[in-house]
Amino acid sequence: MELQVGLLGLGTVGAQVAERMLGRREAIAERTGVDLRLRRVLVRDLARPRGIPTELLTGRPEDILDDPSIQVVVELIGGEEPARDYLERAIRAGKHVVTANKVVMAKHGPDLLELAGARDVEVYFEAAVGGGIPLISTFKVDLIANDIEQIAAVLNGTTNYVLGRMAGAGIGFQEAVAEAQSAGFAEADPSSDVDGFDAAYKLSILASIAFGARVHPDDVYREGIREVDPLDFRYARELGYEIKLLAYAARPGGRIEVRVHPAMVPSHHPLATVEGANNAVQITGDLVGEVLLWGQGAGGRPTASAVVGDLLDLAHSVRKGAFNRVAMRFDPNPALLPMAEVRSRAYLRLRALDEPGVLAAVGSIFAEEGVSIASMIQKDSVEEGTAELVFTTHPALEAGLQAARARIAGLDQVKTVGAFYRVI
Amino acid sequence: MELQVGLLGLGTVGAQVAERMLGRREAIAERTGVDLRLRRVLVRDLARPRGIPTELLTGRPEDILDDPSIQVVVELIGGEEPARDYLERAIRAGKHVVTANKVVMAKHGPDLLELAGARDVEVYFEAAVGGGIPLISTFKVDLIANDIEQIAAVLNGTTNYVLGRMAGAGIGFQEAVAEAQSAGFAEADPSSDVDGFDAAYKLSILASIAFGARVHPDDVYREGIREVDPLDFRYARELGYEIKLLAYAARPGGRIEVRVHPAMVPSHHPLATVEGANNAVQITGDLVGEVLLWGQGAGGRPTASAVVGDLLDLAHSVRKGAFNRVAMRFDPNPALLPMAEVRSRAYLRLRALDEPGVLAAVGSIFAEEGVSIASMIQKDSVEEGTAELVFTTHPALEAGLQAARARIAGLDQVKTVGAFYRVI
Repeated sequence: MELQVGLLGLGTVGAQVAERMLGRREAIAERTGVDLRLRRVLVRDLARPRGIPTELLTGRPEDILDDPSIQVVVELIGGEEPARDYLERAIRAGKHVVTANKVVMAKHGPDLLELAGARDVEVYFEAAVGGGIPLISTFKVDLIANDIEQIAAVLNGTTNYVLGRMAGAGIGFQEAVAEAQSAGFAEADPSSDVDGFDAAYKLSILASIAFGARVHPDDVYREGIREVDPLDFRYARELGYEIKLLAYAARPGGRIEVRVHPAMVPSHHPLATVEGANNAVQITGDLVGEVLLWGQGAGGRPTASAVVGDLLDLAHSVRKGAFNRVAMRFDPNPALLPMAEVRSRAYLRLRALDEPGVLAAVGSIFAEEGVSIASMIQKDSVEEGTAELVFTTHPALEAGLQAARARIAGLDQVKTVGAFYRVI
Repeated sequence: MELQVGLLGLGTVGAQVAERMLGRREAIAERTGVDLRLRRVLVRDLARPRGIPTELLTGRPEDILDDPSIQVVVELIGGEEPARDYLERAIRAGKHVVTANKVVMAKHGPDLLELAGARDVEVYFEAAVGGGIPLISTFKVDLIANDIEQIAAVLNGTTNYVLGRMAGAGIGFQEAVAEAQSAGFAEADPSSDVDGFDAAYKLSILASIAFGARVHPDDVYREGIREVDPLDFRYARELGYEIKLLAYAARPGGRIEVRVHPAMVPSHHPLATVEGANNAVQITGDLVGEVLLWGQGAGGRPTASAVVGDLLDLAHSVRKGAFNRVAMRFDPNPALLPMAEVRSRAYLRLRALDEPGVLAAVGSIFAEEGVSIASMIQKDSVEEGTAELVFTTHPALEAGLQAARARIAGLDQVKTVGAFYRVI
């Protein structure tokens, strides 16, 4: 069978998708029975030389969105608008859509999916999270018999690379970001990555599917990695932790907990070993137990793997005039767990005067705030007459941890609270 | 929609499948739109008390295979016959089938899939490999745009547990197997696991799908773990390796290479960190790069997760009277790479007289057989007047490695060649 495809965008991912569709058309048709026909490609600059036939190129989105012979629109422009508008117009025109757009899917995914359900077309978005790692299909199909209990993930390759360089080379945040930029792992403006927005978008998509609920990116508690101090990598190692930008979702007591922040991850935890620009997602389901999916979370070729995989899966539905996927339903107004009620272990590093009574004072505050201490390290500080104290705690309410942190910072004997991390 | 299901077998997995279908029927229907109706269950002993309504039980397979109201047969008996016969009869009767049977799928999977294609019914077998880890669907759907280059996996939980205990507790093979048996991770007769048959079945299924070729379990080169010597865990650690039962498939130069044997896996390799009875599969695709999938590879609940997931995916195809999966094709007579032509790195440990000339003799043999040495450790042996020598090599042909191993064992100064491992 033939599948008539229109492509919006010919950047890093789009170029790889076009290359696979054009260069491997016969091999794919032989293996899968699907003849992927690239009919039209929307580009910004028609004059720029490209590796694909110029008659396929257009600068006018309506050449794709309004062409009734095009069955599937692949959106690889990125960003919120006009990508969202194009997707909506394609769906309204009765076309299936495939997208790698995490911003649109995080903010408008449930709307687009519901619209597509009403129009009896499909929205595929495997490429929107984790490059070629099969995440969306795992939740939608493979783990559908499970109640999903927890998602713990490293969803942003840039920050993982930066934290890895800080840990490995002992360099500071700015230097590590500069390295990531020269290595092509970070944008000139790294904010979307290092401030946790990218991970929050991806986590909101995964949580929405996993829990069948509208989880907006604004619902995700978010802290980035700008404040991560090189000093803490040394203590982390000593205590048996790695520092990762953790994306975490769960549903304790029926309320959805979604958060992205730097965290101490025990060295034996599978997420601790995720190196470089990789992504990894650990899913806990009530039947399956723990499943871990790991791979390159971004890049033209891995993302193209997901896009073309989506196209081929879609083609088999189109062939029979039927769509197989579970119609997704989203609770429009799910209960969210406020951050203050989140329970986690914590790591607190402070510098205090090296004199009697400090430990007693800190210990009293922890106890009064309902926080139980799990371990403590005391070391000479670089600053004369002071000592560095590092505490880890047993699981405690965020409200208690933050109250303790603030009260400890206010003690006369405490010079600074240098770091606060949650521990997975 | 309703899906009328007949279940063959009510053992560890069957009981979990029945429990989820009966106990969570309404929740599943609400979430997925599919009402899973368990119509009949084949059991061996009708008198044995069970947690499900007795009117569902039958001792006669034809009550399920010949009941026209049953749309799907779930085969959870295990073993080759009569399971294969039941599956064939169900397919010939126009029923879809779901199976967790690795032996049948490894030996007869392509036949059953082709028969099912001719009858326009579906064969789902996600549960046959790796419990609830989404492996079959990953190859069939998510990575379908890729040329699969390599599969490197830990596919047998029992041997992974045994090797982990040998490494961690310094105990021998027999003792570790006894522990695995008391912990419920090994059968009374552990041969299927420890001799590598189980892993070879699973690998042949994965390789068949990945390469679109009939790979029979007998095509898999196979060595078990009975000869693994506790001593080598110490050297492995020193050299930065873990010892795993590796399942490996690739297609160098178009010929299929499939092998299961103990191997030295570098500590930084994701497979090295797979602990206990877990499974992990690292897949290399030409677009996606490396993807790792990890989880519990066996057990009633993880396997039931895959079975019920298959049922729900199947239901959505049945609803529309259409089947979405890529029709699988298998090269009936693929070229196989003979073991002698496999290239790998190797680890060789030998005990030799502690006198001049030994290293020169061993080095000459390696060189003459085209094997280049990568590292060497020499230590005093427990046996007076002898030394223990451990070599690792650069990649070399198996034929050369085996010739070198035999010639070295024949040297007058060499007392024993104590161990030979391939290194991934």
